[in-house]
This record gives sequence, C-alpha cells and structure tokens, in this order.
Amino acid sequence: MVPQWIIEKKRDGRALADEEIGFFIQGYASGVIPDYQMAALAMAITLQGMSPDETVALTRNMLASGITLDTSSLRNPKIDKHSTGGIGDKVSLVLAPLVACCGIAVPMIAGRGLGLTGGTIDKLESIPGYRTHLDEAAFLHVLHTCGCSIIRAMDNLVPADNKLYALRDVTGTVPSIPLIVSSILSKKLAAQPDGLVLDVKWGHGAFMTTRSGAEALTRALVTTGRRLDLRMAALLTDMNQPLGRAVGNSLEVAESVDVLRGNGPADVVALTLELGVRMLMMGHVAADRKQALERLRAKLQSGEAFERLKTMVRLHGGDPRALDDPARLPSATIREPLPAHRAGFIQTVDAEAIGRAALLLGAGRARVTDKVDPTAGIAALKKIGEVVTVGETLAILHTNRRDRLEEARALSADAFRITVEHVSPPPLIALEI
Amino acid sequence: MVPQWIIEKKRDGRALADEEIGFFIQGYASGVIPDYQMAALAMAITLQGMSPDETVALTRNMLASGITLDTSSLRNPKIDKHSTGGIGDKVSLVLAPLVACCGIAVPMIAGRGLGLTGGTIDKLESIPGYRTHLDEAAFLHVLHTCGCSIIRAMDNLVPADNKLYALRDVTGTVPSIPLIVSSILSKKLAAQPDGLVLDVKWGHGAFMTTRSGAEALTRALVTTGRRLDLRMAALLTDMNQPLGRAVGNSLEVAESVDVLRGNGPADVVALTLELGVRMLMMGHVAADRKQALERLRAKLQSGEAFERLKTMVRLHGGDPRALDDPARLPSATIREPLPAHRAGFIQTVDAEAIGRAALLLGAGRARVTDKVDPTAGIAALKKIGEVVTVGETLAILHTNRRDRLEEARALSADAFRITVEHVSPPPLIALEI
Repeated sequence: MVPQWIIEKKRDGRALADEEIGFFIQGYASGVIPDYQMAALAMAITLQGMSPDETVALTRNMLASGITLDTSSLRNPKIDKHSTGGIGDKVSLVLAPLVACCGIAVPMIAGRGLGLTGGTIDKLESIPGYRTHLDEAAFLHVLHTCGCSIIRAMDNLVPADNKLYALRDVTGTVPSIPLIVSSILSKKLAAQPDGLVLDVKWGHGAFMTTRSGAEALTRALVTTGRRLDLRMAALLTDMNQPLGRAVGNSLEVAESVDVLRGNGPADVVALTLELGVRMLMMGHVAADRKQALERLRAKLQSGEAFERLKTMVRLHGGDPRALDDPARLPSATIREPLPAHRAGFIQTVDAEAIGRAALLLGAGRARVTDKVDPTAGIAALKKIGEVVTVGETLAILHTNRRDRLEEARALSADAFRITVEHVSPPPLIALEI
Repeated sequence: MVPQWIIEKKRDGRALADEEIGFFIQGYASGVIPDYQMAALAMAITLQGMSPDETVALTRNMLASGITLDTSSLRNPKIDKHSTGGIGDKVSLVLAPLVACCGIAVPMIAGRGLGLTGGTIDKLESIPGYRTHLDEAAFLHVLHTCGCSIIRAMDNLVPADNKLYALRDVTGTVPSIPLIVSSILSKKLAAQPDGLVLDVKWGHGAFMTTRSGAEALTRALVTTGRRLDLRMAALLTDMNQPLGRAVGNSLEVAESVDVLRGNGPADVVALTLELGVRMLMMGHVAADRKQALERLRAKLQSGEAFERLKTMVRLHGGDPRALDDPARLPSATIREPLPAHRAGFIQTVDAEAIGRAALLLGAGRARVTDKVDPTAGIAALKKIGEVVTVGETLAILHTNRRDRLEEARALSADAFRITVEHVSPPPLIALEI
C-alpha cells in the first residue's frame, strides 16, 4: 500500500477498507506517514465523509495505536461520561464523584481546553496540587479507593489521536463527524468502560452550532460506540447560553462545590442529574428513573458526593481544603462588574461571545502551547429569563490582564440582550437517544 | 491573516481573495506556512475548486514567488510545449530539437515524474552526464547555440511550485484544475515565452480520466494563459493506452531516438508532428499546416533533428554516444516477458495499470524523497488493434526489484484485454483549441 493511493481513494469519495485505514493510522502514529499526508487525508475525510464501517475501523485503529488501561479488576460497572464541550460546562467535576457514590466506577480520561471551550483537565489543575497525570497503577489505585478518577491521557495512550488532534486544529479539519467520533471514542475506549453517556452540545457556544449538525454527530457517536460493544446513551443539550453562572477554571471549581453542597445553578444541577440517571440505569444500579433520581439527590444532600470529590482530589495529590474554603483557590487581581444598561428580561446570553471574552481574560488558550490563567473568567452570570434592573450586575469579569479588560467588557456586554417582554428559559435537553 | 482561516474558507467552498492567496503562497514558499497546512489547502482546492479569478491570482502569486529568466535576447519566436503528462509520453525529447531545427526557440522548463506519469527531467537524467540543472547564463547559452534547452526549474524559479508540485504528488492533490493550471503556467511564464502549445491528455493514464474533465482543464489552461498574455493553442489527446511502446526513463529515451531516426511507434510520430505544426504556425515560421508538416518531416528524415538532440545533450554535459548506441544507456538486471494467454486483437491496454506496474518496478516515486530507477519500466508494449498469438509477448518488464516483480506482472497482465473481434486503434486527437 502507498499512502497517497489511500488519500486519492477518499478524495474520490470511495470507502476505505479496514486495512487501508489501519495502514495509514499506524503509519502516522509511528511517524512513517508524515503530517502533510495525514492533513490531506483529514481534509478529504472532512469533505467526503466516512461510512459507519469506516468510522468504526478508524476508531479501532486509533485505539490500537497505543496502550489500553486494564480496568477489568474494578467490580462496579464502568460508565464514563463525555461532553463535546461547552462554555461553563463543569458537570464532570460534580457527576463523577456523585455517581461513584451510587456504585458506578468512572475511569475518566479528559482533555484540555482548546479554542473557546474549557477542558476538565484545566479546571482540575486550578486545584492546588492536583496531578492530572497518573500512571496506570496510580489511576487504578484511585479508582479502587474512591470509584472515580479524572486524568489526562498518557502520551502512549491513543498516540495517533494526540497527533491528529493537534494537526486538525491548524488544518481546518476540526468539524468532521468521523474524525470527531473516532477521536472521542478511541480515547474513551482506552479505559475499557462498559458504557458511555454522551452530552452533545449544540448552539453558539458549541462547535456544532446547528441542531441538525449536533444531531448527526450524536447519532454517529451512538452508532459507532454500539458497534464497538459499548453501551451508549446520549443527550443533546443547549449551549446557546453558558452552562451555570461561572466560566473559567477556578471559578467553575467553586461553582461545582456549590452544586455538591446542594446549591448551585439550576441548569447545572438539572443536567448533572439527567446524565447521572442515564449512568446509573446503564450500570444497572438503579431500576428506573425515579429510583436513580432519588439516590442521586440523596448523595448530593447528604454531602457524601462532596466528600467523594475531596477524596478523589486528595488521592490525586490535591488540597481538599481548597474545596472546603474557596478562598484557598487561586483568584484574580481584577474583578470588574458588568452593569445592565436597561431593565427587563434577559433574552440572550451569547455563549460564544462569553467564551471569547473569557479567553481574552486569560481563561483559555488560542494555541496549544498557551498557558491558561486558572483564576481568569466570568462569574455571577445572569441567565436567560431572569429580570434585571438598570445598573444591576450582569456578570463579573475576573482577570489579571488589565490590557485585555476593555475588549472583554465590550464582548461580554454584546453577549446580553435585554427585552421588556417576558422570556422563558430555553429547554436544556433537545433530544435523547 | 491566519493560515487555517484561509483553509477553512476554501473548505467551505468560498472564493479566496487575491491577498489571501498571496499570503498563503508567499508564506509557503518562505517556509512560514508548513507543508501540512499547504496539503490541507491543496485538498480543499482539489475538492472545492477555484474561480477563473482565483486561478489567475494563484498563477501570478506562484510566479511572483521566484525569479524570471530573461530570454528576450533570443531572436527566434519562443514557443514552448507542455503535456499534462501521460504514461510513455516522451514527445518533448523529440519535439524540442525538431522544431528548433525549424526556427523556433524552445526554452523548456520541465518537471519530474508526478503520480504515475514520468517526467521529462527524469528521462533526460537517464542519459549519462546530462545536467538538468543549469543557471540562467548556461540555459541562455544552450538556447542561443542550438535553439532548445530542457532544464528543471532552479530552486529560486517558482519556488512555491517546486515545493507544491512535490507535495501534491504525495497528498492526492494532483488532479485539481486550478492547481494544475497554476503549476504549469507559472513555470512556463518564468521563461517568458511568446506562446504555449498544450497537449492535454485524457483517459485511464492521465490526471484527467474523463474526456469532459480534460476538456475543462484544456479550457482553463487556455483561458488563464490568455489572461496572462500568452498565445495559446491546445490539443486534447488520448491517454487510455500508453503512448508508444516504452514506459520508463531510459527505455523512453531509446524510443525517442528511434523516432528521431525516422522509425518509432506511429502514435509518437503522429503526435510529435501535430504539436510541431501548432508550434511552427504559432511562431509564424510556417504559413500553413501543409508547409509546417513538410518542414518537420524533412528535419526528421534528414537526421538533422537527431543531431540537434545530440547537440543539446552535449551542451548539457551529457554523453551523445548514449543516443547513438543505446547499449550505453543504463539497463535493468531483470527483463521479464509478459506472454499473451489467448490469441486475438488487443482491445485495451489500460494505461493506468501499466503506469502503476512501472512505478512498482521502480520507474516512479511513491514519496517525494524516493529515487527513481532510470532503468526500470515496461517496453515492447503491444498496442490496441494489434494481433497476438497465444504465448506472444505483450510487453517486457524491466526492473532491479525482484520482490516487486510478481505484483507488477499481475497488474500488467490485467492491463491487457484481448478479443476475437477486430479492434480499431482509438483516435489520437479528441479536440483542438
């Protein structure tokens, strides 16, 4: 086989055979096939698509490029959750310890933020001492001890995806369903879960801006996952406004603590419970939705889920006191309130604009090599449907970059539209599979 | 401007502005934009196309990436020929000295093999000593002395195309009309010819496998060339079977010598004369087709054209004795005849399959850095319409790679279809502009 024949075949819209995909991906992972051939194939895949068979083969071969973590010693059903990424999405921090309290094992391999969306790994790294890089033995130790562990991928775990993910970012090949599906599932499969609950985002703040695009991605993920013997469930959820009231790493950790203490924004609580219900039912630790909800609510209210997060943080080398006392979390030197210029109902809170503003303030990275400021972001966000008076605070900008403040303030102000007419909050869940 | 934004714009099917094309091409030529981003853009252009304006802008920017050669001191009309490349196309080796004998100056900048098709430069380099790399002064000296010179582009002549041509070869982005047009014309324009006669190939063995695709390419070349102030003429010719009876570098040199000695395959002779007629008429050195044909035939028959090739070879440092005595050309250690398994008329000789087989035998390159084996290829090819008996030789495979022989033999055997019914040879010229 010759790499360019495979590229040409896909360019011409024909389906690639399993062994052709394997040859290309293993060659790319090992460095025999250079970036420029992978870039050409990625663009051909982006424009010509892939069949379900090809997507399955791509996922399998990505997985086969690296090691897998042997989690077979875990007794509890292993159910993972994946979100396609959104502004203010801190659900994993609440959900993992919560379902672990209910008898689910959560061996979660998460990513860093890129572009506008934050990454779970960046959020965890804002907790003083938290190590996101564990070896297999340490990962299993945490899982056996507290039922959940959130780590970032080791270099030898799906190395083909590590390379391809960075390449896609700079070659215009991010929004391709087969490439997204294989990237997500290969990384998830490396921890050998029994099932996966997906939270696919759609809207201004998601990378699938249209509902139809997000639906197509959801169906492709579920179909491919099932063909790879994963139990699959998926929710398609709203990302037109940010999730919760906080965007930015340590600000989102603080909000997660609020939720685990029985408070927190209603949308974060609702989404966490909905995803938790699917995880419990998928793991057969709850008989039905009602029982699942009761168990989850009880673990939140008793504080057990919060204690579980603190245990997980301690096992990762982090300081659990930073969760008991948010003053121990790093914080920004500048806190700038954004006042409302008119009274009325909040009609829109453009998630993309809030994401761009948070990135400017230091909360995200424009390039893979950028450093994230853990303290930067936007907090106390008003939500769609809420009422404000003139001068009332719509949000508080947190940053250490005074030079970026003006631009971020203008962007954030533009994100809000206020109307005199009554506005209902948008439905959180658009579709369920 | 950010390179991936330009890639994304083309990916989404939108037209690029002149300055965006300039930014990308100059960035690529200077090494600021890496191969993988150029590969992604090339694939997006291949699948989404370019408008006439974009193609003109791409050609101008490619040309502007390097120097131009000042050929204004040549007295004879400067008419160049370009073939889009086919299996066994060695016409330039015959045509350049032939029309030079008739008063045309041929400042030809040629390329290396691309995809399955051989390059004139690779063929010339199989002549011992022939230097394809001359500086501007040496090139002009050869042109003033013998009227024709075939060189490969200096590194600073259309450097963007030098890099892109090699990259396209290994990224499946060869058959793109705007990329072909800008590559051909930028390189041709660098030698400042007055006119250009095109031989656009269509069929299994050409970039353009369909007649309609080749017609579109022909029209795009002619339109773009005229917008760039070149006189243009074009023939659309058959490349469903290989041209002539030899494929591979030194094998094709030997066949060119046959033609220049008044022998050689009828199709190579006919095509050379047809292109020569257009060049003579475009240069106003013949009044009409009849006169042009007479002059060309006379120069072939007198041996003057052959002497002119030898002069050109000598001026390039090559050994003209290798042309007088083909035994001095390099030859392969393995020569394997391919026997006919049935008797009848040759119905098809799949040029693509023959090209792939020749590549396997060593005559082409799968990667930019691959070396071509000058001795490898396929000779003594039967032509469509010829009669064979059982066991008669359909072709002879030449190679130094015994490990590749079996696969190449299977490919070559599949290229031939034999029927009991009478078959006429296909028409050589499908369209003329």
